[in-house]
Amino acid sequence: MERPIDDELNELRRNLLEMARRAEEAIASSIGALAERRADLARTVFDGEAAINALDVKVDESCLRLLALRQPVAADLRRIVSAMKIASDLERIGDLAVNIAERTIDLIELPPLKPLLDLPLMARLAARMVHDALDAFVRGDDGLAREVCGRDDEIDKLNQQVFRELLTYMMSDPSTIGRAVDLILIGRSLERIADHATNIGEDVIYMRQGKIIKHHCDEGGGNGPRAA
Amino acid sequence: MERPIDDELNELRRNLLEMARRAEEAIASSIGALAERRADLARTVFDGEAAINALDVKVDESCLRLLALRQPVAADLRRIVSAMKIASDLERIGDLAVNIAERTIDLIELPPLKPLLDLPLMARLAARMVHDALDAFVRGDDGLAREVCGRDDEIDKLNQQVFRELLTYMMSDPSTIGRAVDLILIGRSLERIADHATNIGEDVIYMRQGKIIKHHCDEGGGNGPRAA
Repeated sequence: MERPIDDELNELRRNLLEMARRAEEAIASSIGALAERRADLARTVFDGEAAINALDVKVDESCLRLLALRQPVAADLRRIVSAMKIASDLERIGDLAVNIAERTIDLIELPPLKPLLDLPLMARLAARMVHDALDAFVRGDDGLAREVCGRDDEIDKLNQQVFRELLTYMMSDPSTIGRAVDLILIGRSLERIADHATNIGEDVIYMRQGKIIKHHCDEGGGNGPRAA
Repeated sequence: MERPIDDELNELRRNLLEMARRAEEAIASSIGALAERRADLARTVFDGEAAINALDVKVDESCLRLLALRQPVAADLRRIVSAMKIASDLERIGDLAVNIAERTIDLIELPPLKPLLDLPLMARLAARMVHDALDAFVRGDDGLAREVCGRDDEIDKLNQQVFRELLTYMMSDPSTIGRAVDLILIGRSLERIADHATNIGEDVIYMRQGKIIKHHCDEGGGNGPRAA
């Protein structure tokens, strides 16, 4: 039987999916702009972020209204609290994509340092994590959520690799230092995006199982701080 | 009149204050370890983080129990939702202090690059922001919360300064590259700590005024993404 709260929960879900779609697009555009050396594409990320922020406030307000007026318990309560946490992670992903876009606009004024392979790969993997974590949320699939958490390690390894390679560049040719540092910071932003996707996976597991697994996503790779 | 919920809200407040105390200590120890070249002090940050994570889970569980059993409305509801958000920011501050401590342990194996002045100053300012944001939460002081948000700009400027200075070091002496990149990433972590303190300030304003000001903390300096 359809309850009055179901309509509101469906709208909440739609807003979260829209936020996630925009966050994935922001990740793809910020790195696409770097790879294709297109400042116009980088600038689309700024507008995208404003839309993500507006949706974040909307989700927060819906959740608070639901908590105050419907006084949900059990699974509904967990769903609403998870939605607030997921929105906050998506919002930070939008911020990180803006960081990448800002650096991209500076970088493409200068000659390319090296062919870009690992950073676009990290971006694709991170955007996929966001997509699948939201899919797990919508379908209530805690297996998928756990699997998403596990993918974080691959991105960390790629980031370590990018970091070491760029240090080598800088050491052998100091004229590359400014650009290499920017690329290191872009790698770090992508790695943090993957951390936020992992947080979303953990929130889905909490929503499904009523168990807070953050700081203990052992089977899933965890989400502690990173070395680079 | 004391209501049953007040005891629980007081306990919540105590746990948040304990988290904040530990977060401030983690910031001070991670940078203190760098300035005094003490690996033992850096390692205390790892234990501190475990304690912060445990408190984060405890706060989350208390909030969920309060939401489910007391079905709070209005100011109580906002206080509980704010507490969850504040705990999540304090937990990330703990992660960032661990990042700094990890880098510190690597750095103090090598000769010092330069006298440290700006990074310890940034750390003191950031720890003070965390302290005052929690003070604003406890006292319900939205003026103080707004003032804390405004301090973010000063830390951003210091970070820009540190960043530029370290680029100059690397360019004039490539043997400094590894250490300079580590110090740049430490600066970035301190700047993110200040962002989280700003988020806490914004949550306090929301709690007091029922108005979500994130992304619009205009009088307060805002909390958008940063350039370095």
